[in-house]
Amino acid sequence: MTSRIIGYYTTQFGELWDKSLFNLVEEAIIGVLNTTNIEPGTIDAIFFGNMLAGILENNLHAGAKIADIFGLNIPIFRVESACASGGIAFHLAYEYVQSKKGKTVLIIGAEKMTDVQPEYITQGLISAASGEEQESGITFPGLYALMARIYMKKYKYNEKNLAAVAVKNHAHGVLNPSAHFRKSITVEQVLNSPIVANPLKLLDCSPVSDGASSLIITSNQSLIKQKGGVHILTSQTATDSISLLRRDSLIGLKATRIAAEKAFTESKLQRKEISLAEVHDCFTIAELFAMEDIGFWKKGEAGQKAIDYETLISNGGNLIVNTSGGLKASGHPVGATGVKQLGELYLQLTQQANKRQVKNVKYGLAHNVGGSGGTAVVSILGV
Amino acid sequence: MTSRIIGYYTTQFGELWDKSLFNLVEEAIIGVLNTTNIEPGTIDAIFFGNMLAGILENNLHAGAKIADIFGLNIPIFRVESACASGGIAFHLAYEYVQSKKGKTVLIIGAEKMTDVQPEYITQGLISAASGEEQESGITFPGLYALMARIYMKKYKYNEKNLAAVAVKNHAHGVLNPSAHFRKSITVEQVLNSPIVANPLKLLDCSPVSDGASSLIITSNQSLIKQKGGVHILTSQTATDSISLLRRDSLIGLKATRIAAEKAFTESKLQRKEISLAEVHDCFTIAELFAMEDIGFWKKGEAGQKAIDYETLISNGGNLIVNTSGGLKASGHPVGATGVKQLGELYLQLTQQANKRQVKNVKYGLAHNVGGSGGTAVVSILGV
Repeated sequence: MTSRIIGYYTTQFGELWDKSLFNLVEEAIIGVLNTTNIEPGTIDAIFFGNMLAGILENNLHAGAKIADIFGLNIPIFRVESACASGGIAFHLAYEYVQSKKGKTVLIIGAEKMTDVQPEYITQGLISAASGEEQESGITFPGLYALMARIYMKKYKYNEKNLAAVAVKNHAHGVLNPSAHFRKSITVEQVLNSPIVANPLKLLDCSPVSDGASSLIITSNQSLIKQKGGVHILTSQTATDSISLLRRDSLIGLKATRIAAEKAFTESKLQRKEISLAEVHDCFTIAELFAMEDIGFWKKGEAGQKAIDYETLISNGGNLIVNTSGGLKASGHPVGATGVKQLGELYLQLTQQANKRQVKNVKYGLAHNVGGSGGTAVVSILGV
Repeated sequence: MTSRIIGYYTTQFGELWDKSLFNLVEEAIIGVLNTTNIEPGTIDAIFFGNMLAGILENNLHAGAKIADIFGLNIPIFRVESACASGGIAFHLAYEYVQSKKGKTVLIIGAEKMTDVQPEYITQGLISAASGEEQESGITFPGLYALMARIYMKKYKYNEKNLAAVAVKNHAHGVLNPSAHFRKSITVEQVLNSPIVANPLKLLDCSPVSDGASSLIITSNQSLIKQKGGVHILTSQTATDSISLLRRDSLIGLKATRIAAEKAFTESKLQRKEISLAEVHDCFTIAELFAMEDIGFWKKGEAGQKAIDYETLISNGGNLIVNTSGGLKASGHPVGATGVKQLGELYLQLTQQANKRQVKNVKYGLAHNVGGSGGTAVVSILGV
């Protein structure tokens, strides 16, 4: 059965001091209904991806709270897979449509992160790590820094290879009006920014952001005829041991490798047919891992290709990565990220990406990760 | 496509001071695999229902933590719909099998509630209510007490009509070795127990429990041939405004009415064909609402039928309710409850319920509620 994304909306990402979680959710719902000109009664179910509302604001049972906004008593599901909550919401919504339970489904990803003291955010985020990692006092920058050190040593790279990822994604963020950061940065600025967890500097890290993004997907053929949209070729997910201690390897993420392999098998596409990807760059090292683990590049190549800026829009290469600005510049309201990635592909594939439009795009891939790699989701869209 | 439940396991429910959340989850996984004699490699995905681990123990991203136990990199999804988390996990797992994404899926519901100070549990649970209800300082017993008062006044009932529900469910709990409470109580004991939120007494309220329950469902026809199991006829869910202020009526739960109507429509069954039900008796008033909202009895009849003990096993009626002991006596580890309800029906329909076995059971219904009625799930199983 063919299912398509027929609409996308995102709020501004950033420090939105005047907006609550459900203000953002409401804007995302109304925004996508208006953009697509679809009546609420057409929506059969809602999937909501959110990580931290329980911990940060004692706010659970979002399904029923969204029912207050939506008002139609339809099934509403909240799913949580740490920073992959948005990608997983999309994945399960797609399967829900494939099961024929519903024809037209709304997906929302949202996170409100800035209303608490920074130490609570750090503590909330580390809830996605293993108990022993939490007890050790390490943070997510620390976990990724450990992996970065091993990767850099093995392939003889230095901090410049990491920094180039942030420079590229900020260059893209300048072109995205909804991005948290819309200013360009240099390698020197990254290297001179404060150390968060050596070798990761402040500008190697995605920010703490607020935001909500929404998609409508449908298998209703008459709606598809009206709205066009983009084809969902596949959505695949895999898990891995959340604890670095118990991983087979620390120079990449096994969950990404498995999910990507399944996605390419099911879609029958080759890596080289993908001209556009939104990958999970929560830290600069994570984009290097993603490019290798998805199979775009061989293990160890990404550090070089990063400083060659191969995937920068303005270089006009065959594969452009993180046109939204990625998590780094677009911002990382964790539940929203996986939805925004798919929305960015939708905008590109429907030629609505304005200043950051990539030419001749046919297939795009989205890659969303939970924690230090315990969950990965890989989805492929096509025109 | 036909899908069946082919296995069930539950840990003891109770105050399990020596077990962590993931100890319980591990026992539930190993237990159901052993009981069904199924290899882990047969499982295509896992759905996990849990409400409070984020709030109570800063423990999110359970999918990846279960991956550490399971070790096979398969998709694992955590869903949260307050006290309906288990029922929703089952619902989405069933749709996942119907979508043909996976053939054989493991469902786990679990909650660890007793390791924190009681006031934190109350605070965690009220996260499922609306923001304005939270700010008012009301608790869930308070919300159900408000609804109980309105129901009692309208239909001229008193606290004895409520108490009879607890007496019946404790009588059933005596027969269930995994129940939190296995002692019978009297109406007088209920009436004389401390007031929690008038008119609800301590013995009108389900307890704070630890526990984990697990099911395996499959559409694999050769597995079904080997294992038998029970047929899943339908699983339906609906939402309603979480805030009592914005409800159409306070003498029942609209979300239950909608989900039940959809379940009977899809299964093409009549109410009178159901001989067994597990309904969500978080408070005694909630079982009265459930019986009327599902449509077993007319609005206003349940108070009388409760004191007639129509649904008590030993009365041998046409419809027996909460043979597990319900939430009241079996216990209410919130994420586990919806899974245990379906497991109890499985045991009854496969003639494995021992001392509490009901004769001539053909169809059973499970009803799981989130919060004060913001979410409801109604599923029907058959032999």
